[in-house]
Amino acid sequence: MKLPVTVLAASLIQIVTTGEAIAGSSNADQTKPNFILIVADDLGFADLSLNGSKQIPTPHIDRLAQEGVNFTQGYVSSPVCAPSRAGLMTGKNQVRFGFDNNLTPENQPGFDPDFKGLPLSEKTIADLLKPLGYVSGLVGKWHLGYATHHHPLNRGFDEFWGYQGGGHDYFRSEPDGVGYLSPIESNYKTPQPITYLTDDKGDECVDFIRRHKDQPFFLFASFNAPHGPMQATEDDLELFKHIENVRRRTYCAMVHRLDVNVGRIMETLKEEGLEENTLVVFISDNGGPCNQNASINAPLNGQKGILLEGGIRVPFIMKYKGQLPEGKTIHHPVISLDFAPTFLELAGRRLVEEDDFDGVNLMPYLTGQVKEAPHENLFWRFTISAAIRDGDWKLVRLPDRLPMLYNLAKDISEQNDVALLNLGRTLNMLKQLGEWDVTLPHPLFFEGAEWKKRQVDLYDREYQLIQPD
Amino acid sequence: MKLPVTVLAASLIQIVTTGEAIAGSSNADQTKPNFILIVADDLGFADLSLNGSKQIPTPHIDRLAQEGVNFTQGYVSSPVCAPSRAGLMTGKNQVRFGFDNNLTPENQPGFDPDFKGLPLSEKTIADLLKPLGYVSGLVGKWHLGYATHHHPLNRGFDEFWGYQGGGHDYFRSEPDGVGYLSPIESNYKTPQPITYLTDDKGDECVDFIRRHKDQPFFLFASFNAPHGPMQATEDDLELFKHIENVRRRTYCAMVHRLDVNVGRIMETLKEEGLEENTLVVFISDNGGPCNQNASINAPLNGQKGILLEGGIRVPFIMKYKGQLPEGKTIHHPVISLDFAPTFLELAGRRLVEEDDFDGVNLMPYLTGQVKEAPHENLFWRFTISAAIRDGDWKLVRLPDRLPMLYNLAKDISEQNDVALLNLGRTLNMLKQLGEWDVTLPHPLFFEGAEWKKRQVDLYDREYQLIQPD
Repeated sequence: MKLPVTVLAASLIQIVTTGEAIAGSSNADQTKPNFILIVADDLGFADLSLNGSKQIPTPHIDRLAQEGVNFTQGYVSSPVCAPSRAGLMTGKNQVRFGFDNNLTPENQPGFDPDFKGLPLSEKTIADLLKPLGYVSGLVGKWHLGYATHHHPLNRGFDEFWGYQGGGHDYFRSEPDGVGYLSPIESNYKTPQPITYLTDDKGDECVDFIRRHKDQPFFLFASFNAPHGPMQATEDDLELFKHIENVRRRTYCAMVHRLDVNVGRIMETLKEEGLEENTLVVFISDNGGPCNQNASINAPLNGQKGILLEGGIRVPFIMKYKGQLPEGKTIHHPVISLDFAPTFLELAGRRLVEEDDFDGVNLMPYLTGQVKEAPHENLFWRFTISAAIRDGDWKLVRLPDRLPMLYNLAKDISEQNDVALLNLGRTLNMLKQLGEWDVTLPHPLFFEGAEWKKRQVDLYDREYQLIQPD
Repeated sequence: MKLPVTVLAASLIQIVTTGEAIAGSSNADQTKPNFILIVADDLGFADLSLNGSKQIPTPHIDRLAQEGVNFTQGYVSSPVCAPSRAGLMTGKNQVRFGFDNNLTPENQPGFDPDFKGLPLSEKTIADLLKPLGYVSGLVGKWHLGYATHHHPLNRGFDEFWGYQGGGHDYFRSEPDGVGYLSPIESNYKTPQPITYLTDDKGDECVDFIRRHKDQPFFLFASFNAPHGPMQATEDDLELFKHIENVRRRTYCAMVHRLDVNVGRIMETLKEEGLEENTLVVFISDNGGPCNQNASINAPLNGQKGILLEGGIRVPFIMKYKGQLPEGKTIHHPVISLDFAPTFLELAGRRLVEEDDFDGVNLMPYLTGQVKEAPHENLFWRFTISAAIRDGDWKLVRLPDRLPMLYNLAKDISEQNDVALLNLGRTLNMLKQLGEWDVTLPHPLFFEGAEWKKRQVDLYDREYQLIQPD
């Protein structure tokens, strides 16, 4: 039998990337892996037992790493939710299509509200997987636009149970509610009243997996924990009653409940015999906003909203039984933009120039087939700030001070700015960063000037500025 | 007779600012000066005999300075036309209301074209003078919006003879023409075919002065010379036939013709007996774009489009016979934003907080009443770049290199970047600049990413960058 070229190419890629011969299968779809993308919201880097937390045992998330690959230098492409998710969903740095900041419900004068969301020029992972025979479901938070044309069901997802905004009350929704009290929306069932939102999302994830076990699927498990409002069940709060600070106690309880539901998802995969055919990813959409939800990013400096490591370096785990090493730790920098190309090639589609991803397929790097680091450098821009990572070096640029340069190999906490001691490197990295920056299009929407000032203040919190004479 | 408070206040200000008692006049309007704002377009700093040109005699413009005040450090608020004019017309730095760049005929996706122009929140000099009994006329280029609500006749002007765009052919307009061939528009006469545009504008200015000599008036004489297209009359080209370079020859002829028409305006004032009651201002809207119209900004470095002195320091002259010193040279920095408050106070209106001007009334500084410099510091932002002037020091900030610091008193040509040799000052000025910058609102429209790259390239033309290791 002569295989069509596309099928052949897809099969070859699978051989190359997984190192296993699966081209002989008669049912192509059975060879396609499922993808589960579990996204925590505002989770502190240090708030998993995996990363050293003595306060919050997270056995289920930890086990993902023990049975898969843990990335100690895993990044997201923005220090706040919506742009980070725009990058995550497309595999492109979102500032390349003008998605610079969070969306607000209010419209800015002069900006067309039709553009306030993930631009229609961009394809989501769900869009990309659809022609390859995948069913895609989003459980939870969307945050990529409120307009009909930005709705997840119009952006590649077949199923949606959740809400379009950036957060939600954990105990309550109201039929006419707005914002955090908005009704839960679903296109495949009549949503029941919320019990506790994290559990309800766990239920929906389990249900999705069971209903679609016979078809390749992509499940975007978009949890809101431990994003505010700070709300936990009485039972979970009881577990952390030894913690005096109420906010921290609540936060710990919320992370615990997230961990429990990650466990339920993994258990379901096992029960349904899908463990060996499912790639599971766990990340947070940005670093912990310490001053809001009492998260801890130590040893990283900074927090949600800025480009120090605490804002953009997040827990980052991939598990794919039989295909990825177990218990391996990767120290090379990787980024959430890598998931789209990784999923796509695993699903059998060869990457083409038009995909225009900033991410790369991580598989060859994880199976040992390629020895180099996946990325020579990484770029970030967030409203007034920008940063570049080049090898172990990171440079952060702000409008009101000199650029800051850190050697992360020696200074993970970004305490020692060595920009002026490494002037050649500083100039070189500034030039690289600037050359990228000035090619970017204008932002499609803004949250207003207060965000700019807020950022400067957040950096000032982290550093005692050198006092000018 | 008991004068109303407002009239009294106005009269007192006149006494204070001009040092002359005019409050006793029975016809308040006869005490109000006329204002003529003559704006050249893309004129090189060095292209007046006043500023040392050996190629272009400009006796009429020179005479303004000989009979008035010449400012050696006169600035505009932007290195390109439209934003510079937005600042000029309002007395506010235009980036404070989102007018960051030139307008383009094409609309950018995501931006509401209704906002592409001088925002309706802002008042022009013509708006401000109207309640004080002034008639205002615009002759020439507008460039502050194409929409009906942005039209000069809806922005305070009573009369308009000209075109809404940024430039025009000097010999030709067409009934259905667009862009540089658009028809000349007027609300007070049927425009005749163009002879030579600079002469036609001179005619209209003379006509405006004659028709309104009995009423306080504001004439915005908005010439387009020596902006492209590079076109001059045969007679004028003949005068400069010794110049081999055709572009430079044409440029010189265009500046000559501008000078002739400035002379005609001044002659008319004299003929009509208005010389002693008219404040005349002459500036260029930005520095010369040397690589486009063959202008010369020496000894200033840089050109139109960037924030080096050649982009923003311009010929800057004020003449007000009997009220301002004659032949005086002022070396303190001043800016085009100063005209709105200067005119307004001279017209008898006390400045109030709501005016929110960035400029100041220059009169007390010019009559010697106040000895200090009018401005402690000046700020600029133009798309990706920003600059601050503080005393003799100037700092320029770009996204792809370290900030540059110059001591203009010693280094008018900005050749010696001393930022790292004056680290305390650099940090201080960066902080001042950044604190201002991050309070600014978002731009209302953009010309697109190519402008950003173009700017970086223009700076690179001026400097051999330090080569990074």
